[in-house]
Amino acid sequence: MEIAKLGEFGLIDRLTKDIKPQNESTKYGVGDDCAVLSYPNSEVLVTTDMLMEGVHFDLTYIDLEHLGYKSAMVNISDIFAMNGTPRQLTVSLAVSKRFTVEDMEQFYNGLRLACDKWHVDIVGGDTTSSYTGLAISITCIGEAKKEDIVYRNGAKETDLICVSGDLGAAYMGLQLLEREKSVYYSQVDEAKRKGDKKALESLAQFQPDFAGKEYLLQRQLRTEARGDIIEKLRAAGIRPTAMMDISDGLSSELMHICKQSHVGCRIFEKQIPIDYQTAVMAEELNMNVTTCALNGGEDYELLFTIPIGDHEKIQAIDDVRLIGHITKDSLGQVLVTRDDQEFPLKAQGWNPLQ
Amino acid sequence: MEIAKLGEFGLIDRLTKDIKPQNESTKYGVGDDCAVLSYPNSEVLVTTDMLMEGVHFDLTYIDLEHLGYKSAMVNISDIFAMNGTPRQLTVSLAVSKRFTVEDMEQFYNGLRLACDKWHVDIVGGDTTSSYTGLAISITCIGEAKKEDIVYRNGAKETDLICVSGDLGAAYMGLQLLEREKSVYYSQVDEAKRKGDKKALESLAQFQPDFAGKEYLLQRQLRTEARGDIIEKLRAAGIRPTAMMDISDGLSSELMHICKQSHVGCRIFEKQIPIDYQTAVMAEELNMNVTTCALNGGEDYELLFTIPIGDHEKIQAIDDVRLIGHITKDSLGQVLVTRDDQEFPLKAQGWNPLQ
Repeated sequence: MEIAKLGEFGLIDRLTKDIKPQNESTKYGVGDDCAVLSYPNSEVLVTTDMLMEGVHFDLTYIDLEHLGYKSAMVNISDIFAMNGTPRQLTVSLAVSKRFTVEDMEQFYNGLRLACDKWHVDIVGGDTTSSYTGLAISITCIGEAKKEDIVYRNGAKETDLICVSGDLGAAYMGLQLLEREKSVYYSQVDEAKRKGDKKALESLAQFQPDFAGKEYLLQRQLRTEARGDIIEKLRAAGIRPTAMMDISDGLSSELMHICKQSHVGCRIFEKQIPIDYQTAVMAEELNMNVTTCALNGGEDYELLFTIPIGDHEKIQAIDDVRLIGHITKDSLGQVLVTRDDQEFPLKAQGWNPLQ
Repeated sequence: MEIAKLGEFGLIDRLTKDIKPQNESTKYGVGDDCAVLSYPNSEVLVTTDMLMEGVHFDLTYIDLEHLGYKSAMVNISDIFAMNGTPRQLTVSLAVSKRFTVEDMEQFYNGLRLACDKWHVDIVGGDTTSSYTGLAISITCIGEAKKEDIVYRNGAKETDLICVSGDLGAAYMGLQLLEREKSVYYSQVDEAKRKGDKKALESLAQFQPDFAGKEYLLQRQLRTEARGDIIEKLRAAGIRPTAMMDISDGLSSELMHICKQSHVGCRIFEKQIPIDYQTAVMAEELNMNVTTCALNGGEDYELLFTIPIGDHEKIQAIDDVRLIGHITKDSLGQVLVTRDDQEFPLKAQGWNPLQ
């Protein structure tokens, strides 16, 4: 169905009609000039992110349901990165004429799946049109006790540096999707060049080759915010001294923490967690897997520092790896390679403005 | 300067470097995964809006400083429309390559001018790239005591219906801008057709004819949120029973209030406040000025209902006009014309999805 047929209010009604707020802090959701929230006993955390078609996502790779899921998760991840609990979310969409009501429903399905996973209420938004493509802006609101909030600026000398999960897989997933896309287009081009209609027709059934690389795809297309790690840290009585989520690559994020905390760091190549599939894919593409893990974006794992006294506690937590420690500011940011050479860390993270 | 030269973080640093939060409720602004706010004694209001180039604004009409100002004001207006006080704002921008660092600074100048006017802190955002044009998403956060919040759904039979300022001028301002744009392009086309290079060159100095219509332009390009009216209502001890801001046209907004409050309404054409310049422009364009006032968008005046007992109090307030009253739901939404005919109100407000 064409979106114009429903109009703005009809579409919003349809997308939000059975949203029922779950959180005590949500006093009023969709349907007025503002949402109304109540946080008498904690601080309010607010984060916002914008995703543009062609820049942040390519709809040849990702369907709208996964995109909705990912859009919500990357914002939810920012709340966890402050050691908070996500509670509400608003979503603004600008859509061009090629999108249908059903497309928007798919997007909302994904969005709601992600929100339901972390008990987040969709409390408002805006749906409008765009000349070209799809633009998504999400704001997520959460809460934390004042004393629990973890900023980027609290890392201290001798603190241990930890990351959750493994790194570089989301980036390798993107490389894989791009490779298969270019395989497809080169076959189309060749069929056109030869005037081979039959080959062109059969390319409609083109099956990209993802065998053995499912994990990479999952990491690129089904982003998960690591609220489970936050819960485990709380249960273990560990309060990180500094924390952020890894959206632009480990190097870049670590440098943010060092800069804002006025400290240096020393991380060890051999400690950086890398999945087997990530390593295989890097080899296939003739890329250095450590470079991918250091600079590949979109893993949305947590990077955090903890007091050295929490060493034993952290080792009891699954899926968290110690990768180094914080040093004096004057020692700079250093990577120690497998063969014990030292290099200054460089932020080569993904830059959407270059 | 090209934006790519600064990169994302460089640009954000430059745009936000001397932003100093003013509000007690702003605990931490730009620079971490989230902003941190504190609202122990009031409810938190959240509103969000997305503005797309070519759909919501045309950069041939509006410069980036005015656009920044307007983008902030339309969101601030939503907080006032709940009878709240705006406090914080986040802004996400997606910009194509044709925009420079200086352009972004201009946009931020306007944004900050609007925020300063209402003591709103810019606490975060996102700056990224877009394939085509400029996309703006703003979230505004405010506060109100629970008992002060005014929803759309509180209008009661016999309540009086009021609007601030005058209506239709922003829409007429847009018509004026579009007329002058088409005059310009028709002269360009004619000069090209004739191959008249001299005429083409002199068109670079084309001066649109806005004489005597400055107010219309101001209403279109320099949107003001009516916080002054909110202050006056408070000072007079009037608490509206229902309220919203008029962004899509009086008819459309009044129907929202009636629908959500389960009431009808009766408004009087002769009471609708219209500026002299609006009336003159409508006549020039052969348009019915009442239709413009009912359906023209972007005035950002306040529409609200008050108990009939506040009749005298409201008449003592400058720049507020009584336009009718609330009736039983079964009586529908009625416009009484100057010659005492009755028509059902229709929402022909601006629909960005049609």
